[in-house]
Amino acid sequence: MSAPKKVVLAYSGGLDTSIILKWLQTEYGCEVVTFTADLGQGEELEPARQKAELLGINPDNIYIEDIREEFVRDFVFPMFRANAVYEGLYLLGTSIARPLISKRLIEIAEATGADAVAHGATGKGNDQVRFELAAYALNPDIKVIAPWREWDLSSRTKLLEFAEQHQIPIAKDKRGEAPFSVDANLLHTSSEGKVLEDPAIDAPDYVYQRTVAPEDAPETPEFIEVTFEKGDAVAINGEAMSPATILTKLNELGGKHGIGRLDFVENRFVGMKSRGIYETPGGTVLLEAHRGIEQITLDSGAGHLKDSLMPRYAELIYNGFWYSPEREMLQAAIDKSQENVTGTVKLKLYKGSATCVGRWSDHSLYSEAHVTFEEDAGAYDQKDAAGFIQLNALRLKLLAARNKRVSDK
Amino acid sequence: MSAPKKVVLAYSGGLDTSIILKWLQTEYGCEVVTFTADLGQGEELEPARQKAELLGINPDNIYIEDIREEFVRDFVFPMFRANAVYEGLYLLGTSIARPLISKRLIEIAEATGADAVAHGATGKGNDQVRFELAAYALNPDIKVIAPWREWDLSSRTKLLEFAEQHQIPIAKDKRGEAPFSVDANLLHTSSEGKVLEDPAIDAPDYVYQRTVAPEDAPETPEFIEVTFEKGDAVAINGEAMSPATILTKLNELGGKHGIGRLDFVENRFVGMKSRGIYETPGGTVLLEAHRGIEQITLDSGAGHLKDSLMPRYAELIYNGFWYSPEREMLQAAIDKSQENVTGTVKLKLYKGSATCVGRWSDHSLYSEAHVTFEEDAGAYDQKDAAGFIQLNALRLKLLAARNKRVSDK
Amino acid sequence: MSAPKKVVLAYSGGLDTSIILKWLQTEYGCEVVTFTADLGQGEELEPARQKAELLGINPDNIYIEDIREEFVRDFVFPMFRANAVYEGLYLLGTSIARPLISKRLIEIAEATGADAVAHGATGKGNDQVRFELAAYALNPDIKVIAPWREWDLSSRTKLLEFAEQHQIPIAKDKRGEAPFSVDANLLHTSSEGKVLEDPAIDAPDYVYQRTVAPEDAPETPEFIEVTFEKGDAVAINGEAMSPATILTKLNELGGKHGIGRLDFVENRFVGMKSRGIYETPGGTVLLEAHRGIEQITLDSGAGHLKDSLMPRYAELIYNGFWYSPEREMLQAAIDKSQENVTGTVKLKLYKGSATCVGRWSDHSLYSEAHVTFEEDAGAYDQKDAAGFIQLNALRLKLLAARNKRVSDK
Amino acid sequence: MSAPKKVVLAYSGGLDTSIILKWLQTEYGCEVVTFTADLGQGEELEPARQKAELLGINPDNIYIEDIREEFVRDFVFPMFRANAVYEGLYLLGTSIARPLISKRLIEIAEATGADAVAHGATGKGNDQVRFELAAYALNPDIKVIAPWREWDLSSRTKLLEFAEQHQIPIAKDKRGEAPFSVDANLLHTSSEGKVLEDPAIDAPDYVYQRTVAPEDAPETPEFIEVTFEKGDAVAINGEAMSPATILTKLNELGGKHGIGRLDFVENRFVGMKSRGIYETPGGTVLLEAHRGIEQITLDSGAGHLKDSLMPRYAELIYNGFWYSPEREMLQAAIDKSQENVTGTVKLKLYKGSATCVGRWSDHSLYSEAHVTFEEDAGAYDQKDAAGFIQLNALRLKLLAARNKRVSDK
Repeated sequence: MSAPKKVVLAYSGGLDTSIILKWLQTEYGCEVVTFTADLGQGEELEPARQKAELLGINPDNIYIEDIREEFVRDFVFPMFRANAVYEGLYLLGTSIARPLISKRLIEIAEATGADAVAHGATGKGNDQVRFELAAYALNPDIKVIAPWREWDLSSRTKLLEFAEQHQIPIAKDKRGEAPFSVDANLLHTSSEGKVLEDPAIDAPDYVYQRTVAPEDAPETPEFIEVTFEKGDAVAINGEAMSPATILTKLNELGGKHGIGRLDFVENRFVGMKSRGIYETPGGTVLLEAHRGIEQITLDSGAGHLKDSLMPRYAELIYNGFWYSPEREMLQAAIDKSQENVTGTVKLKLYKGSATCVGRWSDHSLYSEAHVTFEEDAGAYDQKDAAGFIQLNALRLKLLAARNKRVSDK
Repeated sequence: MSAPKKVVLAYSGGLDTSIILKWLQTEYGCEVVTFTADLGQGEELEPARQKAELLGINPDNIYIEDIREEFVRDFVFPMFRANAVYEGLYLLGTSIARPLISKRLIEIAEATGADAVAHGATGKGNDQVRFELAAYALNPDIKVIAPWREWDLSSRTKLLEFAEQHQIPIAKDKRGEAPFSVDANLLHTSSEGKVLEDPAIDAPDYVYQRTVAPEDAPETPEFIEVTFEKGDAVAINGEAMSPATILTKLNELGGKHGIGRLDFVENRFVGMKSRGIYETPGGTVLLEAHRGIEQITLDSGAGHLKDSLMPRYAELIYNGFWYSPEREMLQAAIDKSQENVTGTVKLKLYKGSATCVGRWSDHSLYSEAHVTFEEDAGAYDQKDAAGFIQLNALRLKLLAARNKRVSDK
Repeated sequence: MSAPKKVVLAYSGGLDTSIILKWLQTEYGCEVVTFTADLGQGEELEPARQKAELLGINPDNIYIEDIREEFVRDFVFPMFRANAVYEGLYLLGTSIARPLISKRLIEIAEATGADAVAHGATGKGNDQVRFELAAYALNPDIKVIAPWREWDLSSRTKLLEFAEQHQIPIAKDKRGEAPFSVDANLLHTSSEGKVLEDPAIDAPDYVYQRTVAPEDAPETPEFIEVTFEKGDAVAINGEAMSPATILTKLNELGGKHGIGRLDFVENRFVGMKSRGIYETPGGTVLLEAHRGIEQITLDSGAGHLKDSLMPRYAELIYNGFWYSPEREMLQAAIDKSQENVTGTVKLKLYKGSATCVGRWSDHSLYSEAHVTFEEDAGAYDQKDAAGFIQLNALRLKLLAARNKRVSDK
Repeated sequence: MSAPKKVVLAYSGGLDTSIILKWLQTEYGCEVVTFTADLGQGEELEPARQKAELLGINPDNIYIEDIREEFVRDFVFPMFRANAVYEGLYLLGTSIARPLISKRLIEIAEATGADAVAHGATGKGNDQVRFELAAYALNPDIKVIAPWREWDLSSRTKLLEFAEQHQIPIAKDKRGEAPFSVDANLLHTSSEGKVLEDPAIDAPDYVYQRTVAPEDAPETPEFIEVTFEKGDAVAINGEAMSPATILTKLNELGGKHGIGRLDFVENRFVGMKSRGIYETPGGTVLLEAHRGIEQITLDSGAGHLKDSLMPRYAELIYNGFWYSPEREMLQAAIDKSQENVTGTVKLKLYKGSATCVGRWSDHSLYSEAHVTFEEDAGAYDQKDAAGFIQLNALRLKLLAARNKRVSDK
């Protein structure tokens, strides 16, 4: 790989990416463009602009954007149509944000004539893979720079030395090492490392940032209604809202009731197990709601196919293959299934749990006429079941007869 | 089908199966053998004996058995090795009991020289399918009688008339119609029908029988430890117990904390949707515990394969194909994966939720040396990730280049 | 089911469906509409018109249509995009024709105000299921009449008696029983029953109708080129043709070279095994060609996903679920994958085999620069493979270390 | 990785692995153990011994073994139980040999106290991955040396110079470059590279080594019978044979009739497409035979599950994950299905094709009584089909009614 001339850096404004910014300038002597996005992580963006300017970035090269609506509409919602969970439990909050960041990095590279992009993910995690697979899928000629895999700033001390050498301001609370590492966006907060590294030991309370403890949640349940159209949430309690507004509102509701905490050991794509604490309050409520509306609007054949495809779909997102033909194929299948996933569910939020307690829809497939214990006026002929069972049993009978015949010999 | 001569009836001792008993005698003039099992449904069995005798059954033809250990060891536990859930949420509590009942019906038929078995399931539900597929798979020559599909006792009034005509005692509380229908065993209680038929309306409180409402559960969490060997729970808080004892204990713990309630609309195998209220306190705790121990002891390749097979496995059990070659094939794969699923998890039980907060094992695959944010002493070379990403990206790059080439034309 | 008033009958003009026509008139006293389609079965249609008129059908109620183009374009080609084969070998020639026939039956019923449709499939086979599931999926209120499941004309003698009673002309060669049963359309000819019922015995030569024996095929190979656009064949040897014309031409070529014979024992949806002889000359060539063009134009992720979905897709078509949400979901995924399956393959046809011997495309993903044994000018860095292998191996190493640790105890 | 002290080299005796041998000695100064296996590649092994001695290997360090029986019994046959084909067509002849070679390398390393193994696969192909994943899975502490990824002998000229420098004898025909590269074992011969690199151009005749051209095969078909027990071939034409003997015999028969040639473009695990010419005469016959015996002995539920698992199984073998938990899980499922795959098939071999024309077994599930067009004496009640269809149609009817209701609004 030849040296990059102009690099678009995913820049948070924090100490680590500021060091990367400076390292790119000094190591490669290249022009740096910064991209700072509001994905709902809950931080002000303007300080990042000031810091970038302080580090010598040309104001034209500073990109600061609120991409929360795009994030929820084009990434979070399509994923929730699939009821995607990784390894049974994880709602993929970090995984789903990476492809969008890469997409904007590549677009800004094209707009600014940059030949490279850079990110601050380490060489041990999944995020490097997600950033880079997305980048290469969108521009096969782009260079990707991952300083953590290249430089020799392998300890906290060396990093701080480098920062001091290059007049990078160091916030007081960054002098010491954080007791764990955090990633956040509108869908979730994840925490891992350090005090969380022993999976036998409970996570300390101070790790949680977005949800109250169930013990501290209100003593009385709260009931809400979520309305869906074609698989996407469009209203809460009858009030129509944009995608990001809905997720923000569900985060407030879920967080208040202690919903969406997960203590989890997962398998990273790069081969080792890691332990994370995830908080996905709104997403957890949304998944329960989506399952609820699918219960009455989705056909069993469609639903069972979706269920069987989901683990692969979730794995693709986890592993960083959002921009892959197979993810797009699965999305086409999933989206096809959602055409009538329209209606409203009622949820109970209480002390850590979101549970669906009612659902209704003009698109419902539920037929009280068929299922009723009462007289059904001929909707269903119970005698049909005899034939149904006989033909389903036929192969089992032939098997049993064969096995008896063979074992009798 | 020629008329049966001797029938083994799955007999609860209740009004409905007593009517069936008498109907079999009068309709077919055949000898009836009764089979009443303790599957943990929480009812005394001796009254069933007395009632059978009262209805003229020869004492030699009355089979009353406690099969709880067999139920948990050979049916519930194998199923939980798979983390089986139907349509994302249902723990298959009714489904898994049916094949065992059929197995005993067939064995008793062979022991008593009966040529038929009979059950009290209706023609609208899944249970008829489960009973009959299992029966035919175990004895292809058996006759199966499903009175609900045959007789003309199509209303409560007609049933009561028939009972009175034949001197079948009717308990006072059975005169009126029950407001919903119940099935119970050691794994769960299910309720459906009548007041539950509108899926938009919350289930009334009196439906729940095995769990307290989360609101009424203790104000302080309870922490327990569950130990597994080869995928099966073997001890609680360090105390070794038999399978049925463990599930009983987990039911107590879960029920006390309001865990395992499910309000659910599902797709029946016979084609319509139905709404059920399920209470699976012990099973819900067990599933969370099993997932927790798998997190550290199961390899990702094995785990992801399991996840992708699970929906099909669950569907097979739901549909009544326990005794089918494909269920046995899947079981062989699942059991193979569980050889090292051995260790202990710590769970928090609180107000409706069971959450894993710690797990440890001599069989752990978790390697702090590899995952640590600290110096890893060479356990993992971050530079390897670059090659890993490049080769995973190669096909995506070739795709992107092709797509650009084609669209540029 | 109340008695039908007006029935649309899938009418071939042959003896069996003529008997059905008359039986519908006499049994139900209902008006009959006939539908006779040219699906490429190789029979004249006008005699069917004359025969229907002779049997008293109002000329306005006689529908005769050439639907070969619709058949290939909307049914055969979408299926071949999936490389669908049932149970490893069967190209689904009968299965794929049934939904189209049902679609036209339902459309004609709506056009003529008929309340029922009827078909001539027996109660043992798959075709009844395919006809009826398609009909119900397109019109849930339609009545379907399957005379073979209803009447008591259970022997050849009774059928002929009925025909004579009702002045139905009986061709001389229909007096005796055919030695086997045949179904044909543009995709294939299938033969089954009678002389073919023992799967141990070779099918006699006279069964084959559309292909020469490989032994009688030309002594020299023939090479052809087939061109695809978005997964569908559009030209042979550079000559653009309509879908049905292409399949007709491939049938000629395949049939001449003895290609596409299959002696097969399959599992019917209704539960038993049956043995069939299939001749699919053009389809066999088309499948080989489609695989050939996918080899260079389809990405591995997309291809492997397609391969894993194919068995389920084929099973759905075989079982009659063409008009089901899950088939449509799979089709959406498959069609998504075909957007760049454009290019040309060269095939060798010789003595029973069609083999791809060359393929080229502007949409090719094959990169000689990457794969070459020669200098690759930096296209691929072999050192990347080391990292790729290390990370893929990591979980296997951790497993091996764990297993050793556990077994050493 | 610290320098290796003693290396077990997969040694063919050819020029390339002789250069590797010498390079290991000179580069690392380490002791070399050679392992030369007869896997059925059709070469004498004793010249490898002499050459190793000539290159200074201690006779105690020369391992020469005939492992053909182990190869077929423990690797080829288990794979054929699955009907494994990669990307629809490739019988995995190279892939399946690699794990066995690695297994012996690791065993010899343990026996000789070696700390490393080495192989001659390049950094562009799949074989490096297969060798190394297997090695690490069997011994997580082993070092693996892949000289082609390390050295700078990047051209033919440099290799020959190195050989001359180190007195490695160079056969005359090795002076020039081979026009393509070959791998062979008892299952297949593969050829790739150089003259085969353009996938549009037919492979020249001289590439084929193990099969005659179909044009040159005998003019008359040959019929053979293959007998299976539990999924494995055990006899040909009634004569019992060992696994390797059977495959050898099938190779002779298939090769004589021009069977098993494949011109193929495949997706390598390392990310690019490559074109290969495969000859798998015996394997092609065996696959057809195995499918034939499964047709009558395998239940449809088992068969369809196998079909759906097969692509993943084949991909695992192709990618080098033979020794992985998920391959072993799938094998457990597959082996479970084969318990009654016992019986005999009759095959026709003619001009490039092997076709099953008959099959019989004491374990057959085929029931002429059920399938017959004749009177079936009550084996099957056609009226059952009506109920079967009604219940399968129910959800489709509810869907159609819903869709009509929604679109009418």
